[in-house]
Amino acid sequence: MATNPALAARPEDETYMWRCLELAERGAGSVSPNPMVGSVIVCAGRVIGEGWHRQYGGPHAEVDAIASVEDESLLRQSTLYVNLEPCSHYGKTPPCADLIVEKRIPRVVVGCLDPHEKVAGKGIARLREAGIEVTVGVLEAESERLNEAFMTSHRKGRPFVALKTAQTLDGRIATSLGASKWITGEESRCQVHRLRCIYDAVLCGASTVLADNTELTVRFCAGRQPLRVLLDPRLQVPHEFRIFNDAAKTLVFALREEADPDLVRQLEARGIEVATVGEAEGSLDFAEVFAELHKRRLLSVLVEGGSRLASAMVRSGFVDKYYVFIAPKLFGGDGLASFGALGVTHPDYAVKLSFSGIRRFGEDLLLEAYPVH
Amino acid sequence: MATNPALAARPEDETYMWRCLELAERGAGSVSPNPMVGSVIVCAGRVIGEGWHRQYGGPHAEVDAIASVEDESLLRQSTLYVNLEPCSHYGKTPPCADLIVEKRIPRVVVGCLDPHEKVAGKGIARLREAGIEVTVGVLEAESERLNEAFMTSHRKGRPFVALKTAQTLDGRIATSLGASKWITGEESRCQVHRLRCIYDAVLCGASTVLADNTELTVRFCAGRQPLRVLLDPRLQVPHEFRIFNDAAKTLVFALREEADPDLVRQLEARGIEVATVGEAEGSLDFAEVFAELHKRRLLSVLVEGGSRLASAMVRSGFVDKYYVFIAPKLFGGDGLASFGALGVTHPDYAVKLSFSGIRRFGEDLLLEAYPVH
Repeated sequence: MATNPALAARPEDETYMWRCLELAERGAGSVSPNPMVGSVIVCAGRVIGEGWHRQYGGPHAEVDAIASVEDESLLRQSTLYVNLEPCSHYGKTPPCADLIVEKRIPRVVVGCLDPHEKVAGKGIARLREAGIEVTVGVLEAESERLNEAFMTSHRKGRPFVALKTAQTLDGRIATSLGASKWITGEESRCQVHRLRCIYDAVLCGASTVLADNTELTVRFCAGRQPLRVLLDPRLQVPHEFRIFNDAAKTLVFALREEADPDLVRQLEARGIEVATVGEAEGSLDFAEVFAELHKRRLLSVLVEGGSRLASAMVRSGFVDKYYVFIAPKLFGGDGLASFGALGVTHPDYAVKLSFSGIRRFGEDLLLEAYPVH
Repeated sequence: MATNPALAARPEDETYMWRCLELAERGAGSVSPNPMVGSVIVCAGRVIGEGWHRQYGGPHAEVDAIASVEDESLLRQSTLYVNLEPCSHYGKTPPCADLIVEKRIPRVVVGCLDPHEKVAGKGIARLREAGIEVTVGVLEAESERLNEAFMTSHRKGRPFVALKTAQTLDGRIATSLGASKWITGEESRCQVHRLRCIYDAVLCGASTVLADNTELTVRFCAGRQPLRVLLDPRLQVPHEFRIFNDAAKTLVFALREEADPDLVRQLEARGIEVATVGEAEGSLDFAEVFAELHKRRLLSVLVEGGSRLASAMVRSGFVDKYYVFIAPKLFGGDGLASFGALGVTHPDYAVKLSFSGIRRFGEDLLLEAYPVH
């Protein structure tokens, strides 16, 4: 980015940018559809201000950080760090780029650009026009990853899709007789609830709900309830099932051709929204489902799929991230597989992933992976 | 162990015992059927001697450590650390306990007792009778685990059995069309060869050999060739297959009732040993197989099983350790499962394991686990 050496990153820049990312992450589950942003202000090797975007509609990170500085006169000799390009447009709040110019902060270090069509480089340009030294791309990959949902939403026009499965070491989600509850331990179940908190929607299929009467809410940790999304092509889930309770909102997707209008009306009378979509490859058309969620400004969706939904989702090519909980157990080859058929005939055509993280939760492991294209 | 406070462990004891374990491990793949043993001699807070059992038939660790001390007079004020109880009997070498007494070393710290019927506490007793202060049980669990093969062999009268599988994240070892080669990457394959080096025998079934023409030798690292053990109930593997080449010795197990005597003679004429055993639960009787390996003083066997052998081995209850390589790939539910049926009908009756280690090899993960009884 920086061809002018004066604009190059300095050795200490990464340290302060890590801190920005740490602060930013505190907004997880509270700022969507905004991105998570943290900001640090450094004067002569000392942090004099910190802030982050705490709540959707609240002040941006840069505003929060500037407000935290006791001696405002120091700003004129300071560097402001922020993991995402400062905004240059009027949204819920005035443009941060203008505030930085107004406060005469001489240097700004940015993690990554904002893909939002109203920003996308304009924030940087605004700062540079005002004579501010701007370094862009410090911890760029990490900054992109922190806001992977926001980035995907703006770049692809659909939510970031994460697929969560919980399986035995030999890849089973139920025994040969179909018994499936409590494969993983309590610590893993808590972590699933923490994941639900940071995703805007949680999606599952009718067969999982019919088998387990899943509530699909956040209960084991404090946090916002994501929208529950139920794929129920023929509206088969009875209305007294927990997924329809008052603990969170629910949106049901049904097949346009086959959803009984009476059932739709009954659900709507209970305050449950129903959207109808077409069919694609034997399932609901996921492209339509995600387009609808995108329209509702949901940045991310956590798919908690059984065998069939998981493999349909993989085949669709929409999965952006995998969370695979592995319990230290074997059910054996006659158990129900975690993924249904994927049409892989030769190892060369396997669905390829890349492990990005391994964590232990109690006795279980959580493997995180990204698709490799 | 130590009711007398003078015999209790001291804070520094663990540090030196860790070093013993490190030294001991250098003997992996060279000392079997002896255990791996390391020894450190410390005088006034300084290590003055180190040694380990390097080769079967060679000097024991204590002898090696004592020989490395430049000023022998310091031994009378030193502590000798060793991860396994010093021997008290004449084997290939004279008793180490006698040497320690003779050198007037005043204190000895021991990791764990030697289960060998000729030692089993007699080494400790010999030292204490001579007035030496002996502390036992420092890093006891770690000392036991390092020599898990030796311990199992002496306690259970059969080899330590490790099962290795290499599967996709969704638990598959072949696609729906049976294609299976190269699921894991080169780094994992190297690690498999390193494992083969430290096991006394490597065992596989006829179907794997027929499918892949497995050589089952150590090629990607330097080291001893373990005995190749082929389970071939009806002697179906053709003699020109790689498992019968001259790169290592091979022992074939066949069904007593069904092995064609002509085929047995042909194999034996080529220098391949054949042992016949009975049948148990549709497989060769593993108890007989392992009894035969134990008779040959093999402490450990690495089972590299396909789906059927892996599950038969798990069902038999003989598996002492699992090595599961996981490639970041999905084959889907119509692929071949890593384990066949295990007779698990309810999650409560799952085969329970405990993860003991996670390592990354290239793109793959290696999960190590022990059965939980």
